[in-house]
Amino acid sequence: MDHAGRLRELQSSLPQHGLDLVLVTHLPNIRYLCGFTGSAAALIVGDRGGMLFTDGRYITQAKDEVKGTKIKIVCSSPTVAAAEWLASAKRRFISRLGIEADFMAAGMRDRLKSVLKGRIRICFAPPLIERARMVKDAEEIQRIRSAVEIGAGLFRVALKQIRPGRKEVRVAAAMEYAARCAGAEGMSFSTIIGSGARSAVVHGRASEAVIPRQGFVVCDFGVILAGYCSDRTRTVHVGRPPHAARQIYEAVLEAQQAALDAIRPGVTAGEVDAAARHVLRKWKLARYFTHSTGHGLGLEVHEAPRIAAAQTQKLEPGMVITVEPGAYIPGKWGVRIEDVVVVNASGCEVLAPRDKELIAI
Amino acid sequence: MDHAGRLRELQSSLPQHGLDLVLVTHLPNIRYLCGFTGSAAALIVGDRGGMLFTDGRYITQAKDEVKGTKIKIVCSSPTVAAAEWLASAKRRFISRLGIEADFMAAGMRDRLKSVLKGRIRICFAPPLIERARMVKDAEEIQRIRSAVEIGAGLFRVALKQIRPGRKEVRVAAAMEYAARCAGAEGMSFSTIIGSGARSAVVHGRASEAVIPRQGFVVCDFGVILAGYCSDRTRTVHVGRPPHAARQIYEAVLEAQQAALDAIRPGVTAGEVDAAARHVLRKWKLARYFTHSTGHGLGLEVHEAPRIAAAQTQKLEPGMVITVEPGAYIPGKWGVRIEDVVVVNASGCEVLAPRDKELIAI
Repeated sequence: MDHAGRLRELQSSLPQHGLDLVLVTHLPNIRYLCGFTGSAAALIVGDRGGMLFTDGRYITQAKDEVKGTKIKIVCSSPTVAAAEWLASAKRRFISRLGIEADFMAAGMRDRLKSVLKGRIRICFAPPLIERARMVKDAEEIQRIRSAVEIGAGLFRVALKQIRPGRKEVRVAAAMEYAARCAGAEGMSFSTIIGSGARSAVVHGRASEAVIPRQGFVVCDFGVILAGYCSDRTRTVHVGRPPHAARQIYEAVLEAQQAALDAIRPGVTAGEVDAAARHVLRKWKLARYFTHSTGHGLGLEVHEAPRIAAAQTQKLEPGMVITVEPGAYIPGKWGVRIEDVVVVNASGCEVLAPRDKELIAI
Repeated sequence: MDHAGRLRELQSSLPQHGLDLVLVTHLPNIRYLCGFTGSAAALIVGDRGGMLFTDGRYITQAKDEVKGTKIKIVCSSPTVAAAEWLASAKRRFISRLGIEADFMAAGMRDRLKSVLKGRIRICFAPPLIERARMVKDAEEIQRIRSAVEIGAGLFRVALKQIRPGRKEVRVAAAMEYAARCAGAEGMSFSTIIGSGARSAVVHGRASEAVIPRQGFVVCDFGVILAGYCSDRTRTVHVGRPPHAARQIYEAVLEAQQAALDAIRPGVTAGEVDAAARHVLRKWKLARYFTHSTGHGLGLEVHEAPRIAAAQTQKLEPGMVITVEPGAYIPGKWGVRIEDVVVVNASGCEVLAPRDKELIAI
């Protein structure tokens, strides 16, 4: 990964935002900029380069992972230590320090203010790193591609496991084991196996519930591979699907295809969302589509851009997003179909675009 | 769980802190107070009870999980929606709203201020819920006990898997599969299997590294069962341990026992930490013990109190903490031994206190 290039790009953009320094506290942003994967860190970026603050648990790991950025091992909170280091540095003029509005606690900002005693002005930096992260480079896309490929294979594991009388968690357990054996560092979120009426629970984590003889099973799952996430949903039907079940499945699949067809550079995220919603409105299912159509993914399973109503962010080649419309009739059933796509010059490439016909078990 | 009682206790404590309302945004605190387990929520607690804000993905789940607290399903950020609801409520006087200093982003606080337009004063609430959560009730202790019991069983799985030439992740995969099959909702953190020189990496998540013929393997692992966490570390030696390895293991075990012996009501967390550090100083290993001695655990795997140097928090019966001293010689080897204990009237009960002799594989 080109950490040095990313750091340089951030450095060079600071003056135009009136910033001398930025204090990065969101761990995925720190990883993006310097490669550090520990759970406690703060990173100061200024014209002289980067300075990473972490604690004694990460002495060895920081040395192994971080190149081109200085490392300071500290005993207190890395963020506070970073501020103390800034306060003690000899500077000729008061500088402006940008912080991450969404990733610094309100209490911590006040603490920084008191540490810096007015010598450095604190302001909110624009989401410069989030914006940079939206467009993936070739190596990132390759990692996501590998993660999605491993993730897609887990659906085959699920198909072997799903049967009436089996607990949802057993299906998840087998999938997660297969993911680990295939090299995943872990799952990108708690595996969702929602069977029967639980298929209508949008975030229905695999539970002790037993898969019934008849009904949908929503399987939503993702892995982390070399730091990058996958995210995929397939919905199967246990028992012979009645006409109404086939219809709702067909509607969601049509909505997903409409959203996929809408994706190309210059189109807004809101327009992609609208394309899916338009189809579900036609099927009189729009009110049962209770979430947004998708989200960016990469180092995080949910990152910019949001693919949701009225989002004005324009799509660009290299963006990686999910497309995952669904319809959920509370207490009855639910269907969701999700793929990861890479926006390219002419439209998008759907990664591992298989297993989308309605499968009856 | 006695959610109503917890909510009442919080309500009754607000006046003495000069608060009329508190806006809870830390998800484990929300779960503690009303039982909701979704990933997006805000909870207002005032003299009229609680009001939970969440989004459309959680319509069914919120109804199932939350009793005794009103629920509002909103389309925007639950925290912003909560502030808008407060701003629109007819109130005779300006009230004081407490927010969670550590769990509200600095940007969100500014947004709340602009939504509330001075009609409600925002201030930092003391960590009332964290303090309440430190002392567990009988049902919580029972859940932690069950989680620790399942967690302890995973070490037996690890022992069968650990052998020279096997990848660390394969050991983790087998443990995680066993955890799921035993009913765990997931792992409480990314499983650590650090073999050979990687045993000195304190947070060395299971990697693609191959277990060498000779050396320590640190296994640090925990499960989540019914919402409550376990956390346990055992260190084994592959091959016949040389004298120096036996010595470092003995030192860490002695340090752990000293810390366990120090635990009783009225003792400070800092004194427990000092007890472990004192032993390691005697063995000339204190500088290699680069983290704190332990932490509270419950709904979160790390919660109050911190068992670290100079911490003045006194222990009380019902607190549940980990005791996990270690010693790590960078590039060479590391040892850590960790148990979960419940503080009781006379000292503490170590949960599942087995498998602590040095095992050679």
